[in-house]
Amino acid sequence: MAKFEPYQTLYLRTSSADYPIVIGKGLLSDAALFAQYLSSPQVMIVSNETIAPLYLEPLQKIFHDRQCDTLLLKDGETYKNEHSLFQIYAALHEKKHHRDTTLIALGGGVVGDITAFAASTYLRGVDCIQIPTSLLAQVDASIGGKTAINFCTAKNIIGSFSQAKAIFIDLNTLQTLPKREFCAGLAEIIKYSLLVGGDFQTLVHQSLSRGLTAQAKDLPEIIRRSCLIKAAIVEEDEHEQGRRALLNLGHTFGHALESCTNYLRWLHGEAVAIGLYLAALLSEAYYGLSTDLSSLVDDLLHLADLPRRIPRDIDLGRLRDAMDSDKKIKNKALRFVLCKKIGACYLEDTISEDLVWTVLQKAVA
Amino acid sequence: MAKFEPYQTLYLRTSSADYPIVIGKGLLSDAALFAQYLSSPQVMIVSNETIAPLYLEPLQKIFHDRQCDTLLLKDGETYKNEHSLFQIYAALHEKKHHRDTTLIALGGGVVGDITAFAASTYLRGVDCIQIPTSLLAQVDASIGGKTAINFCTAKNIIGSFSQAKAIFIDLNTLQTLPKREFCAGLAEIIKYSLLVGGDFQTLVHQSLSRGLTAQAKDLPEIIRRSCLIKAAIVEEDEHEQGRRALLNLGHTFGHALESCTNYLRWLHGEAVAIGLYLAALLSEAYYGLSTDLSSLVDDLLHLADLPRRIPRDIDLGRLRDAMDSDKKIKNKALRFVLCKKIGACYLEDTISEDLVWTVLQKAVA
Repeated sequence: MAKFEPYQTLYLRTSSADYPIVIGKGLLSDAALFAQYLSSPQVMIVSNETIAPLYLEPLQKIFHDRQCDTLLLKDGETYKNEHSLFQIYAALHEKKHHRDTTLIALGGGVVGDITAFAASTYLRGVDCIQIPTSLLAQVDASIGGKTAINFCTAKNIIGSFSQAKAIFIDLNTLQTLPKREFCAGLAEIIKYSLLVGGDFQTLVHQSLSRGLTAQAKDLPEIIRRSCLIKAAIVEEDEHEQGRRALLNLGHTFGHALESCTNYLRWLHGEAVAIGLYLAALLSEAYYGLSTDLSSLVDDLLHLADLPRRIPRDIDLGRLRDAMDSDKKIKNKALRFVLCKKIGACYLEDTISEDLVWTVLQKAVA
Repeated sequence: MAKFEPYQTLYLRTSSADYPIVIGKGLLSDAALFAQYLSSPQVMIVSNETIAPLYLEPLQKIFHDRQCDTLLLKDGETYKNEHSLFQIYAALHEKKHHRDTTLIALGGGVVGDITAFAASTYLRGVDCIQIPTSLLAQVDASIGGKTAINFCTAKNIIGSFSQAKAIFIDLNTLQTLPKREFCAGLAEIIKYSLLVGGDFQTLVHQSLSRGLTAQAKDLPEIIRRSCLIKAAIVEEDEHEQGRRALLNLGHTFGHALESCTNYLRWLHGEAVAIGLYLAALLSEAYYGLSTDLSSLVDDLLHLADLPRRIPRDIDLGRLRDAMDSDKKIKNKALRFVLCKKIGACYLEDTISEDLVWTVLQKAVA
């Protein structure tokens, strides 16, 4: 198992970028680390009202020697919208930030996605450093340069591909993360374990069985391996022309669940959890498999205290309609990532409407 | 001189793109041309209320065999804003456009810039074809992948670098262009002539002396050469790390003039015209030149019926403040493109505040 003293550093290299993902404890107050990757005369820290009281101060201290502005957004997926985005633009304009400024995203996936989108479009692009503070953002959202906001109830419908300048993952921040948020992050880790299988799947399953909390000794290694899996797929296919779409396992259903409940009912990871179970059912129906897969997925999600069923009050028609906003749609056909077996997932585009409906109905409880 | 029967095709090749700029008469109703570069099952034509009655119908005929939606924006630089942008996103979402859609920008620079920005960010990027109908958009705005909207009175403050899939320049559209708009386009052509000098400068000067109207026989060649100049500079420096900034000759002043009059008083090209004269004055003051340069620029702009002076009622303090939003600013210092002689322009960043003020005051009339 890798040592995390002082830090572990991975690198993500694509044709458009080459940057470090630094993982460790106490990064947030490490001025030398920031000095290594950030020389701009201005910075704008974007965070939210929940995270700022916990982690803003050490960062501000680090930037005491330059213009450092702060913008706090409201907390939650419902605020991942155009109003928050234009709050950032307005603050940057008002404080006269120039092309050589750096935006710092301090928070979970919502803060990270919006801030990175603002950075990629302010003055046609300024630098962005990601400091993900939630488990989900650390293992998934912050990595790979997908930036976005939601619009008209559609998830991530406006955005860009724009890689960060650096990603700093301070494991200490997980100690203050609410349990529900922590579990939501486990959904993406379970997703990776289904995608790659092998000893990572074994590690995740065993750790979950032992109780995978923020204090678990396996956690840093699981985070590091998750980052590696994501980075490797992004390196191979930065703009999602092919393999990167596999990271959407469970997400066609998940995004639709979020959208048809106006982003209020579930955290993203929770919706993805239900989506993973649905994807397992659809995989079994499409490939003619036994129920071993859905049982395993059900078990993993249960160990992570995550929801797995569609509640009875959800209107399945509305849920199905919301899937029409999926970004993977090509030639007007829905495309799903399905799992032939653990470690062998594929993007399929010949799934009948009937099969989708059967699976939706089967997962209601 | 190049022949334009049937068309002239230039190519713009960067690390991220390789696309044609087709110039000729009657392109707009040439189904075979579109078929060559567009195979997507959906298209959304974005135009404005002035252009649509003139040129929308032939395009819609070409796309009769697929889903073809249309969105008309209000006409004018004041509408190059977030509201127009979100009108496009909303229409795309409502009509269920997917990643394999193509946006078609039919209009001048405003329609082109907004539509291209929407295309570069809808679902993290869909294809965009530019059909510029104004002289300015044909020789400048449509070429090179700069997309943008204005915000908070700041010009092009939100945008992206995103190359078109193709640019179709139908010279016939210039026949319906109001004279004032036509002259505004000449400002960018005069800018190119100052940047490159040589026989292009001679051609432009002679043509202007003869009266360069939409019917002038030199015009197609001047447009083709202008496109070539722009394309060559973009190929060299797509993301404006260096040489591309030279295309901003006259624009630091020009953008500020537009901004401090809320985009209502001048067309972009008119503000650039005054900016070119100011840049000539600043060049003379900075390099210690005679007044030959500003006299020549004054003469060229006069031949093109363009404004060259700052009207007395403009508040110079507000004008100067507006320059602080310039995207070329680095390390908090203003940077200007100056002209040492015709065909030899440079980006300068050590110009004193005093010199800027002297020049502003000198140009008031």
